[in-house]
Amino acid sequence: MTPIHANPDHLQAFAAALFTQAGLPAHDAAFCAECLVTTNLWGIDSHGVLRLPLYVRRVRSGAVNPRPNIRQAAGGRALQVLDGDHGMGFVVGRAAMARAIELAGQFGVAAVGVVRSNHFGAAALYARMAAAQERIGIVMSNVIPNMVAPGGARPVAGNNPIAIAVPTFGEFPFVLDISLSNVAGGKLLLASQKGEKIPLDWATDRQGRPTDDPDEGFKGFLLPVGGHKGLGLSYVVDILSGVITGGVFQQQIKSMYKQPDEPSLTGHFMIVLDPLALMSRDELAERMQQFVAAIHSSPMWDEKMEMLLPGELEHRRAQERRVTGIPLPASLVQDLRALADELDVNPITNLQ
Amino acid sequence: MTPIHANPDHLQAFAAALFTQAGLPAHDAAFCAECLVTTNLWGIDSHGVLRLPLYVRRVRSGAVNPRPNIRQAAGGRALQVLDGDHGMGFVVGRAAMARAIELAGQFGVAAVGVVRSNHFGAAALYARMAAAQERIGIVMSNVIPNMVAPGGARPVAGNNPIAIAVPTFGEFPFVLDISLSNVAGGKLLLASQKGEKIPLDWATDRQGRPTDDPDEGFKGFLLPVGGHKGLGLSYVVDILSGVITGGVFQQQIKSMYKQPDEPSLTGHFMIVLDPLALMSRDELAERMQQFVAAIHSSPMWDEKMEMLLPGELEHRRAQERRVTGIPLPASLVQDLRALADELDVNPITNLQ
Repeated sequence: MTPIHANPDHLQAFAAALFTQAGLPAHDAAFCAECLVTTNLWGIDSHGVLRLPLYVRRVRSGAVNPRPNIRQAAGGRALQVLDGDHGMGFVVGRAAMARAIELAGQFGVAAVGVVRSNHFGAAALYARMAAAQERIGIVMSNVIPNMVAPGGARPVAGNNPIAIAVPTFGEFPFVLDISLSNVAGGKLLLASQKGEKIPLDWATDRQGRPTDDPDEGFKGFLLPVGGHKGLGLSYVVDILSGVITGGVFQQQIKSMYKQPDEPSLTGHFMIVLDPLALMSRDELAERMQQFVAAIHSSPMWDEKMEMLLPGELEHRRAQERRVTGIPLPASLVQDLRALADELDVNPITNLQ
Repeated sequence: MTPIHANPDHLQAFAAALFTQAGLPAHDAAFCAECLVTTNLWGIDSHGVLRLPLYVRRVRSGAVNPRPNIRQAAGGRALQVLDGDHGMGFVVGRAAMARAIELAGQFGVAAVGVVRSNHFGAAALYARMAAAQERIGIVMSNVIPNMVAPGGARPVAGNNPIAIAVPTFGEFPFVLDISLSNVAGGKLLLASQKGEKIPLDWATDRQGRPTDDPDEGFKGFLLPVGGHKGLGLSYVVDILSGVITGGVFQQQIKSMYKQPDEPSLTGHFMIVLDPLALMSRDELAERMQQFVAAIHSSPMWDEKMEMLLPGELEHRRAQERRVTGIPLPASLVQDLRALADELDVNPITNLQ
């Protein structure tokens, strides 16, 4: 198979068919497919359809519950915890954000924790839901520890993602989506392929010692962004997502890569603020536009670079990829075709 | 004058006398003095009595209102904004955190923004108030832009502080208090004194170009921690503290160093969560102790280092300094004595 540029709509229909065949209700299958393809449109291919085979495998093995009974597990008023019942992270995450948005409308601010969920893809997916409702969304999730503290020999915290979205009342929302390691594992692989050394603050070997060898680093652990700063924030994400929710934290979390056939027990935590409880829509829009304009108009010394708002690059890529299609490497096309055969879904002859 | 080790109680009484003489009500003067000396006890001398002369000057010049009428300016239910009426940041910050703690008790989570405040010292002061009430406190504040984006020629964001405190039900709370630059200006001065070069991700010259010269860097701007990660978080702090509150943001904020005789118009934003709305005190205590123990017991490859919880170093230093006293450099003692003379406060003969 050769690499192709897939039509986003066709790719989404294909992914939805796979999820449906795996056992998800049609509307949840469509939503999960939309999440993956949307993430590809933003250019975040690591969190897009690349993971489709793994998600489908996890549903088929029973690790992920295709028809979860998502229900309130604790709390009340503006602070609640939902039990995800081992559902798809996308479906559980959507339910939690919907609840948080609803409660923020009622109370001005709301926080919803989640227990017994699974990998929910890009955290920005949920933060953006809040921004689409003219609210501010803060979304985080815990992952199994993969970062060591300076001097430490074992991982103590995950490179937990945090996403924050704010409505700008412009062409696209402000969307920050970061993980708390200095870099992701993909950068180590890339350095290895290029035969380059890596900076000493990227990764460690299996003993926790900083290394400039990308292969050692890939076998070892990541280092937190900003040393104790990223490490401390990562602890906070784990405390909010796993400790106070009654969920699991630290080594109790499972990895969907290393334990693909077990529920991951992932925790999430979402905070939503309703800025329209503080001022009129017109005033907020004017102030946000002023904030954005100040960034956009700030001069550069490096004329090859550009002052972009968080989320702006994703907005541009999505515009491009809606026209050019989503690039899929040959190996992925092959995997998807094999999966389609296995699940008796129409083969992907018509992705382009 | 020679350097001394000041008795914390005496130093606090002295600072309170200065604030009272400058016009603060006695209980507010005592609180501001306690904030500064407590911060010195943690070892954060940059935010301790070193700044006492400047704070006093600002009250005397009228930049800071010694008797503010702090009142609700916007919002309701669990999301409110307070108008700090140009009061001392400590006094305004305490009022905002008290309100947020109260509202979190009522709603489970609460957020309180603040407009027209001033420099409030260490953000941890307020986050710790929440932890002392067995709640989780998240505190941030905007400062005038002093960081450039990669490739940018002008500062677009402040190295805004974020502090997060969580009760551990142990000897000391979990307290993370970070700024969003890679390093603070003090590290540049230190490198300059030692004649050392600085890493290229610490600071830039006046044109925004990364520099390894600490003197150029000190005259120039800071770089955000983790590049776009710290920059994006800094934008978020400014949006929450200054944009949605109806306060000021970006270049509208004043610097208390560069404009010492003007109100700074600083904004704060505080979020408080009540974890006891989600589980019993016993269960939360057990889970937090488990979280802390896992960190403390994690092995080190570097035996000279130790696995510390955020806030643990400050706890140890405070224990030490309660015994040994707070080290004050000779120049500071001289400044404080001059200020005492000027304000007709008993001279600091008895600080030790």
